[in-house]
Amino acid sequence: MQIAIVGLGRMGSNMTRRLLGAGHACVVHDLHAEAMQALSAAGARGAASLAELAAALEPPRTVWLMLPAAVVDATLQALLPHLGRGDTVIDGGNSHYRDDLRRAALLAPQGLHYVDVGTSGGVWGLAEGYCLMVGGEPDAVERLTPIFTALAPGAAAAPPTPGRDVRAGAERGWLHCGPSGAGHFVKMVHNGIEYGLMAAYAEGFDILRQAGIGAHPRAADAETAPLAHPEAYRYDFDLAEIAELWRRGSVVRSWLLDLTAHALLQDPTLQALQGRVADSGEGRWTLEAAIDTGTPAPVLATALFARFASRGGSDFANRVLAAMRREFGGHEERRT
Amino acid sequence: MQIAIVGLGRMGSNMTRRLLGAGHACVVHDLHAEAMQALSAAGARGAASLAELAAALEPPRTVWLMLPAAVVDATLQALLPHLGRGDTVIDGGNSHYRDDLRRAALLAPQGLHYVDVGTSGGVWGLAEGYCLMVGGEPDAVERLTPIFTALAPGAAAAPPTPGRDVRAGAERGWLHCGPSGAGHFVKMVHNGIEYGLMAAYAEGFDILRQAGIGAHPRAADAETAPLAHPEAYRYDFDLAEIAELWRRGSVVRSWLLDLTAHALLQDPTLQALQGRVADSGEGRWTLEAAIDTGTPAPVLATALFARFASRGGSDFANRVLAAMRREFGGHEERRT
Amino acid sequence: MQIAIVGLGRMGSNMTRRLLGAGHACVVHDLHAEAMQALSAAGARGAASLAELAAALEPPRTVWLMLPAAVVDATLQALLPHLGRGDTVIDGGNSHYRDDLRRAALLAPQGLHYVDVGTSGGVWGLAEGYCLMVGGEPDAVERLTPIFTALAPGAAAAPPTPGRDVRAGAERGWLHCGPSGAGHFVKMVHNGIEYGLMAAYAEGFDILRQAGIGAHPRAADAETAPLAHPEAYRYDFDLAEIAELWRRGSVVRSWLLDLTAHALLQDPTLQALQGRVADSGEGRWTLEAAIDTGTPAPVLATALFARFASRGGSDFANRVLAAMRREFGGHEERRT
Amino acid sequence: MQIAIVGLGRMGSNMTRRLLGAGHACVVHDLHAEAMQALSAAGARGAASLAELAAALEPPRTVWLMLPAAVVDATLQALLPHLGRGDTVIDGGNSHYRDDLRRAALLAPQGLHYVDVGTSGGVWGLAEGYCLMVGGEPDAVERLTPIFTALAPGAAAAPPTPGRDVRAGAERGWLHCGPSGAGHFVKMVHNGIEYGLMAAYAEGFDILRQAGIGAHPRAADAETAPLAHPEAYRYDFDLAEIAELWRRGSVVRSWLLDLTAHALLQDPTLQALQGRVADSGEGRWTLEAAIDTGTPAPVLATALFARFASRGGSDFANRVLAAMRREFGGHEERRT
Repeated sequence: MQIAIVGLGRMGSNMTRRLLGAGHACVVHDLHAEAMQALSAAGARGAASLAELAAALEPPRTVWLMLPAAVVDATLQALLPHLGRGDTVIDGGNSHYRDDLRRAALLAPQGLHYVDVGTSGGVWGLAEGYCLMVGGEPDAVERLTPIFTALAPGAAAAPPTPGRDVRAGAERGWLHCGPSGAGHFVKMVHNGIEYGLMAAYAEGFDILRQAGIGAHPRAADAETAPLAHPEAYRYDFDLAEIAELWRRGSVVRSWLLDLTAHALLQDPTLQALQGRVADSGEGRWTLEAAIDTGTPAPVLATALFARFASRGGSDFANRVLAAMRREFGGHEERRT
Repeated sequence: MQIAIVGLGRMGSNMTRRLLGAGHACVVHDLHAEAMQALSAAGARGAASLAELAAALEPPRTVWLMLPAAVVDATLQALLPHLGRGDTVIDGGNSHYRDDLRRAALLAPQGLHYVDVGTSGGVWGLAEGYCLMVGGEPDAVERLTPIFTALAPGAAAAPPTPGRDVRAGAERGWLHCGPSGAGHFVKMVHNGIEYGLMAAYAEGFDILRQAGIGAHPRAADAETAPLAHPEAYRYDFDLAEIAELWRRGSVVRSWLLDLTAHALLQDPTLQALQGRVADSGEGRWTLEAAIDTGTPAPVLATALFARFASRGGSDFANRVLAAMRREFGGHEERRT
Repeated sequence: MQIAIVGLGRMGSNMTRRLLGAGHACVVHDLHAEAMQALSAAGARGAASLAELAAALEPPRTVWLMLPAAVVDATLQALLPHLGRGDTVIDGGNSHYRDDLRRAALLAPQGLHYVDVGTSGGVWGLAEGYCLMVGGEPDAVERLTPIFTALAPGAAAAPPTPGRDVRAGAERGWLHCGPSGAGHFVKMVHNGIEYGLMAAYAEGFDILRQAGIGAHPRAADAETAPLAHPEAYRYDFDLAEIAELWRRGSVVRSWLLDLTAHALLQDPTLQALQGRVADSGEGRWTLEAAIDTGTPAPVLATALFARFASRGGSDFANRVLAAMRREFGGHEERRT
Repeated sequence: MQIAIVGLGRMGSNMTRRLLGAGHACVVHDLHAEAMQALSAAGARGAASLAELAAALEPPRTVWLMLPAAVVDATLQALLPHLGRGDTVIDGGNSHYRDDLRRAALLAPQGLHYVDVGTSGGVWGLAEGYCLMVGGEPDAVERLTPIFTALAPGAAAAPPTPGRDVRAGAERGWLHCGPSGAGHFVKMVHNGIEYGLMAAYAEGFDILRQAGIGAHPRAADAETAPLAHPEAYRYDFDLAEIAELWRRGSVVRSWLLDLTAHALLQDPTLQALQGRVADSGEGRWTLEAAIDTGTPAPVLATALFARFASRGGSDFANRVLAAMRREFGGHEERRT
């Protein structure tokens, strides 16, 4: 079917290519001409403006926004005058689900449909398909089935769950999760979980990496607890090999572990990285939902806060601790 | 090759079957006659005692202990008189790696080899293979290659890591991780990570489950914070479908998620369970290693403590909190 | 000076008594007649309605609202028609500071002043004074100095901080923290800290209480890690004595410890309590502020989530964990 | 009474002075001559060797070791030949309580008494007294009552706990907590709590410090979540004033807060500190006790791990996270 894609960043471009590959007719728009040219070369039709984009679509139109969350509202406002009753706008980016609630309520009186889609898969989605978490009215979602089918990985991407009847459900790799906002809510929690999973692996590999500290003498230091049993910490583990090992047959095998194995293979010490870890919002919103609903989420919270700390967020708190120690014990800080 | 297996519980029995299936000659021993009979029927040779077991093996002997950690030492003591120079004892259970260090030092003067193997895979290992983390002297480990090859999943169990040369390494599904204790050390951290991963999923699904609380009126209660935006929590998510969805194309796909999808499919509310979550030691030891080495592991710690709390471990601490609140604010506890 | 107090719950009543004791003229209103009668007997003037209350005050009026956060807005709306230019409304309850921002903006065009006051001290405030965290315009706050002085503990309540000049500042026990919302913001973080402090004590006393588990045999249990060194856990600590001990000379001495010592003295096992610990909002909002500002607050988060869990909030997450264990290991849950 | 003190560091010297001030006869020994000379000038008798020290004491002797944990055993071995039946050795330093169990068992057959004393109070103890947590046999402890009385703050150091009868108990500021190791066990948990309390304050003050970030424009950054409500974060709090404020009447008042108020008064930004926070062992051992006994201690664990992280302990884990993000999303790290 015909669809417009607005926003041709890494995600938008790759999704367009996957749609083109599945035979869909794509009209594309982006502020960067090169992005549009690249997609045009791949078979998409470029539109120099939102007006031109809307004019290029047969009603009822389908416009997929693949934009940074911060510019969705402005783009939507610019797009609305060019849309008509029965058209559908999809937000496939990383919007907060509460923005979906607001936007759907804004568009409904004009007879416009709003569908929110949480999209997971990263740079691998082009080849492997995107996991799509969809929210919106059933009819509007239903009409988009060919699009979701083209983008999603499809049932063959994983072995069937034993005991599960084949049905037109989640095993396709996309799911209508509920009314407006449901798609981004599920994606939000997905990312919250992602932070927790990543932190669990990172902590574990860090412990493995430290397993040799008993082999190296440490300066005596009254301020730091000595290692009670140095003889028990004399291992020199090959982290890349261990990551690879766990990919087969272990309880902790996962796609994130596959990626970790690759990263450690390329650079076992990861020295090329600084370890300042960004967070893009969903982890924060997941915690807010946990707080609102009274649901304990200490692991997800701890994982998020570790990211804040990786960027220096704890520096003042640490100085407060050092100040207290100096006050009560006369402990002078050990300087680097 | 010929190998003896001592301990025919769920793990020991299945591993024996997998070894038999690969053409190895297995001598087995267990205190429960039925377990031995079942394996005998499958082609193993039963030995009524450790003496008989040792006599049935051609030197150099290979004896794999698959026992609860608590009885390994006693069994080893009973076995030693029947072994001779050049024989190898394998501990494939969940021993603490420091016990490996001790045991290897005990056996070495007698010319006996000690190999520790962390084994992951659970009930699925029989069909899919076991992930084996091996510690010990290189020669002793090398000699056991046919055994490890038979038990491990093999390279085909996962797609190759891009950029990785095929070599006789971790992609076989087993790895010589280092000297004595290395296998159980790596397995220990594996389980520590496992606890963290599990907790991340559990917290996330719990948040999804609570996403509908705004649809149900709550009793006004001065002691509990009201829900500021009930209209934002009116979803009724199908957790089994969402777990299934994430199995394809999402960043959080994993084997643990596969299992979760199956469990939620069978019983979406999991009401048949009480949620008293056991821990079998490795998570605790992982934390001790983190503490010893000064490695932050807040996510793994939080996950472990959540298990303690699931079994009532926080009950007194909670009463202390309630007592403090009563003291300073006259807050009477709200009784169930 | 003359002041009206609306809301005669535990906090409002006690504050009125403290104001009366300092010689201020108090007009009071509450929906419960008994509360008003009790204060009238103590010297306050009761007002049957907000209109009557406003009429009883000389302009410029001062009205202190001491109400549950949920009813402040409605009361304010009912009160506004009876107020005039130059009057001041104080919210001394537990409002979210963002509500202060909204309300101050609402009142300003009418020439009304809005002052937010975070109030700490609980049932002890009547005798010891209330710690007051104040937000609002400097003039409006300045005018209320006699009220704050009467309510606050005063400088004598604690020894002077060495090196601190005596000045009209925080040592009075009340502080103008900043513009609108500043008072409740500081109170919010105060309570966030409070949760963390309480949890630290609760966890510590729980560990002390468990220090004797090595003296009691435990059922062997393959699902639970055995105690490696039972001989190291044979203490039978008197928690009430230890709490009392730490009150003098220790680093952890505090008012919360004073209260804990009292509670443990009355009931060393706290068996009369259930340990379902409420949270009244500020801890949640503190975390939201931490998340918004990218400030790591893992201790405060963990403390809040422990309260959620104390009320059963983790039950489903725990069942998810138990379900995963059953799936991968065939581990049957140990039932109570 | 007569007592010897071995180890004249900050703690040992101050405790000797306090004992001298109370009229006790002190024999002192230290490897540093200046430390001995200073105490001699204050009225102590210096002993150039352990032999001389023992010879200077009337049997039954009392020797208080105030040494780094790492040298206690060696000093004890050197001291033993000079002691005789009925003598008492006190370890007042920061030993692990399990070392007490071992040492008491070592000394008992020789008729020597071993008493372990956890000592809290830091540099303030000289003036205010030390909180003493004592373990050992009742007779040996009883005999030391005059010493403990001189060192402890005494009942007047805090107001009486309501409802508590005056008795020869914890209100003296020292307590016989139980058999060998009990003193250091209680001190260990004391310090574990201390870490948690400190972290709660540090996190809270950090949030207050960040409360103005909405007033300063931030560079747009696709990798970092934008601040949704900058207008709600425009406060410029005076942390020193707030710390001072909370000292009177608030729920969070404590000695650690007193110290924090002093530190922030001297240097509101604490820029002179680096915030590399040491830990001296007890926090680690507290967690090990929590793990051994199955007691949830997530707040204490999180506080300890924050200290590890303050010293760079998370650097590799953070790089693992950054590597994963690059792998799945092509997210390039934002460099400083």
